[in-house]
Amino acid sequence: MANRESIGIGLMGLGVIGSGVAKVLLSKPDVLAREAGSRLLLRRVLECDLSKHGALGIQHSLFTTSFADIVNDPEIDIAIELIGGEHPAFEYIMECLKRGKHVVTANKEVMSKHWTELQTAADRYKVSLRYEASVGGGIPLIAPFQEDLIANEIRAIYAILNGTTNYILTRMAKEGIDFSVALKKAQELGYAEADPSKDIEGVDAAHKLAILSTIAFSTEIRPEQVYHEGISRLQARDFRYARELGYAIKLLAIAKRSGEYVEARVHPVFIPEDSLLAKVDGVYNAINVEGDLVGNVIFYGQGAGPSATSSAVVSDVIKIAQNINRGTVPPARLPQEQGLRVKPMSEVETRYYMRMNVADRAGVLAQISRILGDHNISISAVIQKESDPATQTAEIVIMTHPAKEAAVQVALEETARLPVVREISNFVRVEA
Amino acid sequence: MANRESIGIGLMGLGVIGSGVAKVLLSKPDVLAREAGSRLLLRRVLECDLSKHGALGIQHSLFTTSFADIVNDPEIDIAIELIGGEHPAFEYIMECLKRGKHVVTANKEVMSKHWTELQTAADRYKVSLRYEASVGGGIPLIAPFQEDLIANEIRAIYAILNGTTNYILTRMAKEGIDFSVALKKAQELGYAEADPSKDIEGVDAAHKLAILSTIAFSTEIRPEQVYHEGISRLQARDFRYARELGYAIKLLAIAKRSGEYVEARVHPVFIPEDSLLAKVDGVYNAINVEGDLVGNVIFYGQGAGPSATSSAVVSDVIKIAQNINRGTVPPARLPQEQGLRVKPMSEVETRYYMRMNVADRAGVLAQISRILGDHNISISAVIQKESDPATQTAEIVIMTHPAKEAAVQVALEETARLPVVREISNFVRVEA
Repeated sequence: MANRESIGIGLMGLGVIGSGVAKVLLSKPDVLAREAGSRLLLRRVLECDLSKHGALGIQHSLFTTSFADIVNDPEIDIAIELIGGEHPAFEYIMECLKRGKHVVTANKEVMSKHWTELQTAADRYKVSLRYEASVGGGIPLIAPFQEDLIANEIRAIYAILNGTTNYILTRMAKEGIDFSVALKKAQELGYAEADPSKDIEGVDAAHKLAILSTIAFSTEIRPEQVYHEGISRLQARDFRYARELGYAIKLLAIAKRSGEYVEARVHPVFIPEDSLLAKVDGVYNAINVEGDLVGNVIFYGQGAGPSATSSAVVSDVIKIAQNINRGTVPPARLPQEQGLRVKPMSEVETRYYMRMNVADRAGVLAQISRILGDHNISISAVIQKESDPATQTAEIVIMTHPAKEAAVQVALEETARLPVVREISNFVRVEA
Repeated sequence: MANRESIGIGLMGLGVIGSGVAKVLLSKPDVLAREAGSRLLLRRVLECDLSKHGALGIQHSLFTTSFADIVNDPEIDIAIELIGGEHPAFEYIMECLKRGKHVVTANKEVMSKHWTELQTAADRYKVSLRYEASVGGGIPLIAPFQEDLIANEIRAIYAILNGTTNYILTRMAKEGIDFSVALKKAQELGYAEADPSKDIEGVDAAHKLAILSTIAFSTEIRPEQVYHEGISRLQARDFRYARELGYAIKLLAIAKRSGEYVEARVHPVFIPEDSLLAKVDGVYNAINVEGDLVGNVIFYGQGAGPSATSSAVVSDVIKIAQNINRGTVPPARLPQEQGLRVKPMSEVETRYYMRMNVADRAGVLAQISRILGDHNISISAVIQKESDPATQTAEIVIMTHPAKEAAVQVALEETARLPVVREISNFVRVEA
């Protein structure tokens, strides 16, 4: 079968990422055609912001503000969705699939919330839905998980999936500054949005982890099943203690399989300072996946930005174009019923770092250890610094052996009620 | 089209890797069948060492010492070649392709020396030839380079591709021991072979780099075009100076595109100690690829060992099985005539570290700098330690700005001829 002369592309959304993708499509058509086997022709651009019409040298006549012009155009083979957000992106993607168009998207929110529906539709209408850019920007992850590591049973994922928070944590660690100062610096540099809550609170990473763990464990993990906790509680002193104890602090997305359960959680974590993940600085992402055969594999790169993201989007487009030319559509991957369940956060076991402010008096540590002991929480290390004569208080840091989340939460509450304890200043989970 | 009930596998070679693969095929048939869509049946094992017959619980009747029993068996769809070495592995692979059998191999020597011939045969006979395990063990590399990063023009590869040498260099760096001591320790632990020359001299890494760069630049790079130099010249004092100057020493495989030229070389390198590659310790591999869109992406994991390698081999087998069930054969990738040429080593430009032993006398540095200056080599840093009163000599370490290899070699020769220079003790290239 001869290759098609050209393959039509409809681009939905000309924001930062959309502009990046358009630029790639327009700036190196010959290189892309060589790989795709056909010219990739940008036939339509859906963008409601009229000020963008004519941008990037895109012919004015290609712009439309109406989705109908994309979905009804028989010359569009592949629709690229880069609008972002859940609505109307989800409806647009679904409608394109139903109308027999292949879809490429970078939308983590839609993919995490509607994975099964969309995969089922792709399967039913025999089209491809690719979303490599939805997790880890340009880092190949979805394809390696689904294809190159397919002989493995995935045991665990430990991942830095949000560049904004990793940038903030890196500055806090290196400069000894507090969260609010580091956030402001990130905003000034454009690494954090004006409303940074989705990044800061771990929502963005939870969406991405839902997608990765759904694929890794062939079981639908919905974003609301991913426990998430942000980084705003962290203070400069937590970083100082972490360093003293031989750890770095990272916002990790963790998914682990144990027996019939999957843990899926996003929260700040102490990790050993000599681990490779601890050395991932700035806006970079890194994903450590542990397979039964391959052991630990790490993927590292830029998790965001128009250029890196367009690498994944355009590579997805090329793969679909190659398949169009071969006359094949790889079957959509549907979740398999394996009876895996998401473990409630209260049942999760990890080690803990606890920092508290106590009265500078004899016997305080004994009272605290008794409470911990009552809840089967054993202490692995304690740091108590010289006390502050002005306030007559001291700071105690406790590292525990593995303990159940529920027990730790109850123990912390009881500890907080001790008259000698002024404040539980912070607690952070620890992964070895 | 319904999936086939089973797909027949012929395994050639039951050494360390072959046994690992057989173990995976036999120990988790249901998991593999679920992914492949068919049961993967081990139909024949070619192994000349009769003592291995009956090993791993493989039925005695499956063993054969005759390649004809593999290639003539119509029930074998996929032949796995794990014999290693160039001959007869190459002939076996070629014959299998010609007879319409798909082939999976981990053989870097065969793939690097016969890439074009084998790809051409796979293309002609409409079968798949997969070789993910030939580079980086279980780390997904071939597929990401060929597929997931396909929208990129690859600019450079910096890679730790040989676990044995990385293990030796790690021990030298951490323990301050010399090469021969570290090699002996690696041999005791089974990380280096009795005859370690292929690893130590960079031949193994050169084979792997030939494969990766052939794919990355879509241009056949033959192993003999890859300059290689080993690690045996390195001494404990080089590591001390490296640390003092802020560098680590690694054996890197480097391929870079610049204009119409490709550099392809394997040699010890000073790299900044805070780079992620500098932190890759022990037998691990790591591959940094730089694409025009994606920027720098790093892949990290176990580059060898039966379990990790079988992850790649069996994943390749599953992909082929899936394609058999879909009735498709992805086209073989053939090298494209892009007019790229391999740059001769003499034309390569890098920075250099030079260590020399000189007479402890005034004006020595002036004489040396004059020679370097005459060859357009400018100095970026100098270390001269207190001299040794017993021998009346001093050690000088010079770091240069980028300079041409040819010029540096001539300058080093001239420097060595200076009466005040006792010895050029070492030189190592530097990558920033």
